[in-house]
Amino acid sequence: MLNVRAAVAALALASSWAWSGAATAQSGPLPSWNDGKVKSAIVEFVGKVTQENGPNFVKPAERIAAFDNDGTLWAEQPVYFQLQFAFDEVKRLAPLHPEWKGKEPYRSIIAGDMKGLAASGEKGLLQIMAATHSGMTTQEFERSVANWLNTARHPTKKRPFTEMVYQPQLELLAYLRANGFKTFIVSGGGVEFMRVFADKVYGIPPEQVVGSSGAVTFRMGPSGKPELFKDAKVEFIDDGPGKPVGINRFIGRRPILAFGNSDGDLQMLQYTAAGDGPRLTLIIHHTDAEREWAYDRKSRIGKLDKALDEGQAKGWTIVDMKSDWKAVFPPER
Amino acid sequence: MLNVRAAVAALALASSWAWSGAATAQSGPLPSWNDGKVKSAIVEFVGKVTQENGPNFVKPAERIAAFDNDGTLWAEQPVYFQLQFAFDEVKRLAPLHPEWKGKEPYRSIIAGDMKGLAASGEKGLLQIMAATHSGMTTQEFERSVANWLNTARHPTKKRPFTEMVYQPQLELLAYLRANGFKTFIVSGGGVEFMRVFADKVYGIPPEQVVGSSGAVTFRMGPSGKPELFKDAKVEFIDDGPGKPVGINRFIGRRPILAFGNSDGDLQMLQYTAAGDGPRLTLIIHHTDAEREWAYDRKSRIGKLDKALDEGQAKGWTIVDMKSDWKAVFPPER
Repeated sequence: MLNVRAAVAALALASSWAWSGAATAQSGPLPSWNDGKVKSAIVEFVGKVTQENGPNFVKPAERIAAFDNDGTLWAEQPVYFQLQFAFDEVKRLAPLHPEWKGKEPYRSIIAGDMKGLAASGEKGLLQIMAATHSGMTTQEFERSVANWLNTARHPTKKRPFTEMVYQPQLELLAYLRANGFKTFIVSGGGVEFMRVFADKVYGIPPEQVVGSSGAVTFRMGPSGKPELFKDAKVEFIDDGPGKPVGINRFIGRRPILAFGNSDGDLQMLQYTAAGDGPRLTLIIHHTDAEREWAYDRKSRIGKLDKALDEGQAKGWTIVDMKSDWKAVFPPER
Repeated sequence: MLNVRAAVAALALASSWAWSGAATAQSGPLPSWNDGKVKSAIVEFVGKVTQENGPNFVKPAERIAAFDNDGTLWAEQPVYFQLQFAFDEVKRLAPLHPEWKGKEPYRSIIAGDMKGLAASGEKGLLQIMAATHSGMTTQEFERSVANWLNTARHPTKKRPFTEMVYQPQLELLAYLRANGFKTFIVSGGGVEFMRVFADKVYGIPPEQVVGSSGAVTFRMGPSGKPELFKDAKVEFIDDGPGKPVGINRFIGRRPILAFGNSDGDLQMLQYTAAGDGPRLTLIIHHTDAEREWAYDRKSRIGKLDKALDEGQAKGWTIVDMKSDWKAVFPPER
């Protein structure tokens, strides 16, 4: 725990405002954002809502900003990182489960047989999630996530997953907070998974992370101490129409800024846009096959189709990763 | 909406530190708390966790304080105020529902027949909650709560319900926040009900209110605008073992201070006490029949039995309302 915390703290430090990107140094609060329409839209919006006595002033308490996580704050290819964690956990736990060797979907994962895994479909994935995300206390789960973050590397980029975050977004989060915004994650990812790193990596504390969750039971543990035990039952899916529902349940106010990258963010963006007063709704379009990945309408992960159409039709701010971002990831350490 | 907001804002102002109670003026941060063991325990705990470089220092981000609401921050007799709201709503809505006149439990409420209502039992209460807490948008519900708070009066004390809050607790909340604590409500009450007044009355913003909730559905409203519609389905009961579960789900950190008044708070207090490092767990014992109400082990509302035994056995801080509180409610305006 301590090691990964120290590592991500150092990362957060290294990736703060001071860093000026690989290209020419640029002044101002968003050095990794290229000048242009998108950056101007952000800066103008923030200027507008923070201008006291201005017609669009928003009180600090109401400056709620909601960010999707996968594909918006960190990458999501070739598979969601939380799924990669689940696969790695199956391998790590395999010696304790000799029966897995002959049993799908475990056999495929242990053998590295992605075709076999795909054949087990959604049911197989749910089994894997249950095997790696339940049957333990919340503290035990937190430790296993922390250990994984500390040792695992991205399969193609070879970097720690906590360095697979987007440098321009770290700057944007810091810029918004410096302007009195409260920044939230609103993600389909597991809330207990994200909370392990969100504070150190993004500066977003546990109580500002909204996500999917499994049922948890309060019980007296073996030592007579109370503990929270993670059950196999899915309780809430914070995706699609679940996002505004999650915002209502956890935050209780409508955001004035929302940022997503896929059709799973559409309803959050619609809900944000429909409020009174100034609103900023943003979508990252993954267009950068060289530095990151290029995918949209036909992708199985992070599909961006309906939200792209609606965003274009309604004048939402579409970020073209290739042209709007001077850097994608923080510099290697 | 505006009126009630203004009223409660004025109340919050009137009830802040400056007010020194009906008795002798007292210096220090908790003027409505009598000097003694309980007040000392609070002040010593806060001193300890805020002393930098001290052995019990807790970083501000981890200074999480969780407060029950009914019977802990405001009164709960002769019936939970949210239930009183539901009864009043049935009366208000009765002209739109002529069929209610011949149908229990509505008939009893409209006729003021509390015996008839009691006969309809828990099923009747759930019907009333559904009739008054669902079948509308979240915005419509918020308006109806705000209107009620603005006009309703407590049946015996004759004061607005937002003035039925405990003056010593307002001071304690402000004192904790002044010492870097983040204050949360963790209550069996409805989260959308409490959020209407929690910010103005307690200084606790919507995103720091944890409570019970009904299911909500995202949909496109009649005007083509997205809205959140309140369904009749109960989704989460934030009471008893549900309180540590709610804390885990919404806050994601274990509190270092928890304050309750009934057996419904027992597991939250156990969970708080079981964390590492300094902890303060407090229980209000309602002992003041003159200024408030006196009830505990046999009360139907706010029953305090097991938690009182466990608190006494484990040395939790038990507040004796009659002797520890110089004042109970804020001064009349």
